[in-house]
Amino acid sequence: MEDDYIALAHGNGGRFMRELIDEVFVRHLGGDELDVEADAVPIALNGGEAMITTDGFTVQPLEFPGGDIGSLSVHGTVNDLAVAGARPRYLTLNAFIEEGLEIAQLDRIVASLAKAARDAGVKVSAGDTKVVRRGEGGGLYLATTGVGERLPGVKPSIDRIAEGDALIVSGSVGDHGIAVMLAREDFGLRGELRSDAASVMALTEPLLALDGLRFMRDPTRGGIASVAHEIRWASGFGVRLAATIPVRDPVQSVCEMLGYDPCYLACEGRVVAVVAEEQADEALAVWRALPQGRNAERIGRIGAAGERVVLETPLGGERLLEALEDDPLPRIC
Amino acid sequence: MEDDYIALAHGNGGRFMRELIDEVFVRHLGGDELDVEADAVPIALNGGEAMITTDGFTVQPLEFPGGDIGSLSVHGTVNDLAVAGARPRYLTLNAFIEEGLEIAQLDRIVASLAKAARDAGVKVSAGDTKVVRRGEGGGLYLATTGVGERLPGVKPSIDRIAEGDALIVSGSVGDHGIAVMLAREDFGLRGELRSDAASVMALTEPLLALDGLRFMRDPTRGGIASVAHEIRWASGFGVRLAATIPVRDPVQSVCEMLGYDPCYLACEGRVVAVVAEEQADEALAVWRALPQGRNAERIGRIGAAGERVVLETPLGGERLLEALEDDPLPRIC
Repeated sequence: MEDDYIALAHGNGGRFMRELIDEVFVRHLGGDELDVEADAVPIALNGGEAMITTDGFTVQPLEFPGGDIGSLSVHGTVNDLAVAGARPRYLTLNAFIEEGLEIAQLDRIVASLAKAARDAGVKVSAGDTKVVRRGEGGGLYLATTGVGERLPGVKPSIDRIAEGDALIVSGSVGDHGIAVMLAREDFGLRGELRSDAASVMALTEPLLALDGLRFMRDPTRGGIASVAHEIRWASGFGVRLAATIPVRDPVQSVCEMLGYDPCYLACEGRVVAVVAEEQADEALAVWRALPQGRNAERIGRIGAAGERVVLETPLGGERLLEALEDDPLPRIC
Repeated sequence: MEDDYIALAHGNGGRFMRELIDEVFVRHLGGDELDVEADAVPIALNGGEAMITTDGFTVQPLEFPGGDIGSLSVHGTVNDLAVAGARPRYLTLNAFIEEGLEIAQLDRIVASLAKAARDAGVKVSAGDTKVVRRGEGGGLYLATTGVGERLPGVKPSIDRIAEGDALIVSGSVGDHGIAVMLAREDFGLRGELRSDAASVMALTEPLLALDGLRFMRDPTRGGIASVAHEIRWASGFGVRLAATIPVRDPVQSVCEMLGYDPCYLACEGRVVAVVAEEQADEALAVWRALPQGRNAERIGRIGAAGERVVLETPLGGERLLEALEDDPLPRIC
């Protein structure tokens, strides 16, 4: 039976992936401290508490406008710690390198990774390399684990979310997804399309001072729609997204041309935050004062328990945003 | 030019790998706390100190007599912490899963990983899965990062090694290497050959109480000969291995048949320790009193500065053990 084998849809951030993780990984490994996917979790060490997260990277092509697999691996890991309310301190790096990869390309990627780590203030403390046979590798896969320290202030958590809370996003969505897709497929459409991949530390840290901060997440695989579904699965509340989701014109054009919904496209340098309604404007003002947040927007609100994930359309209607099942998009991260 | 591309020899634990790591990874990422390869390194956190290590796993076949890629990933990571004088506490897990992998096999492997983690007293705290396209994966690659706490006692370090120190090994060498090779190639020779893969915590912790303990290492990729070369590169001292290296009969037979030198075969549940000569017998007695160490042997001594790595033969001669350059063995870990 087809269901007995891994399919690409098991990796797209949607329902199949969640089921695989629940039925295989969580079932065997489950425990209070397991977080298979997503943001960082606390670990007790030497009487103190640290935060830890891990992420794998398989992006194709390895280099794309605005980044590469090296800088992406740093930003992805740093951002998982940042949205959990931690300051990233250390990274470990695993490289699975395919026989035949050009060493000059590997060198560029590692240099870019090193620069991203320096810029984000994290140290690469330990590493390992494995070489896999030609045809068994995709050029280069990276896995990074990040360790950080919890910052003072709110401990953002999906459990804090309540009906009526506001959703905000720190900038335009889909830039990373579209930039990588175009770099891969070579549609001749690149122009000004660049990945948004970047550290979000400057965005997350100031929000921790707001009592009304509930939860933050970087909308990577599966985009904003998948963050909304995660909130729904974990909290039971519906999510009502608005037509105010910021999408840059060239991203919107490519989406219209190719039939993609920007709500499902990956970002790698954005934050979605859930904030108590009465502090939503303050949170937006904090973000808009930062260069990384000047396009921040309010993008919706938490609905009632039992409701679905919907997008309110400009004309006053609403459209159901389904959880990802099969790949709606080529795989990009 | 051939030298411009990654070759399998860049992954074999020998000279090419060391050069790649130095010239690409260390050059860009270098710093006091970087350890690309090998055992665990200290990281400062919340005012305390933790130890961290990371490792990638690409073994083929995914399951073999005595273990599988899941249990191996736990043992390999736990053992890197153990030989550094730490107690493993937490693991993160990255899985790169190839489209088409049988889910039942993945399930067996994750169950085995979970059991190995429980047995070793470590918690899998965070995880991530990526699915790669059919033909781009080798079935399953795992990357694990381990975090542990430093134990009281000696801080084993290659810097502590001095001329005249004794080398001891906790058990027979090459069992893992041969077991995996036979499982892969199907020579019809399996019989009683099983991997030695296991946690070595019970072996490393008691040795930390000996003032004369200098250094410990688990002889994985490249085997005992490669540990000897690492000692020589890092300390400048020669290493004189003796004909007393324990090799089980079936491993010896397969080596003779296929032309392999057991000194280069990977172990995944053994420890090589360098101990001051006057405490070598005590260290051996500690190990031999344990079920995991009852075949422990003295296997050589640290030579003079500037000497090479040699194996003293039973007839009183000596044989130079070269550093690995091209693969002398199929890749197994």
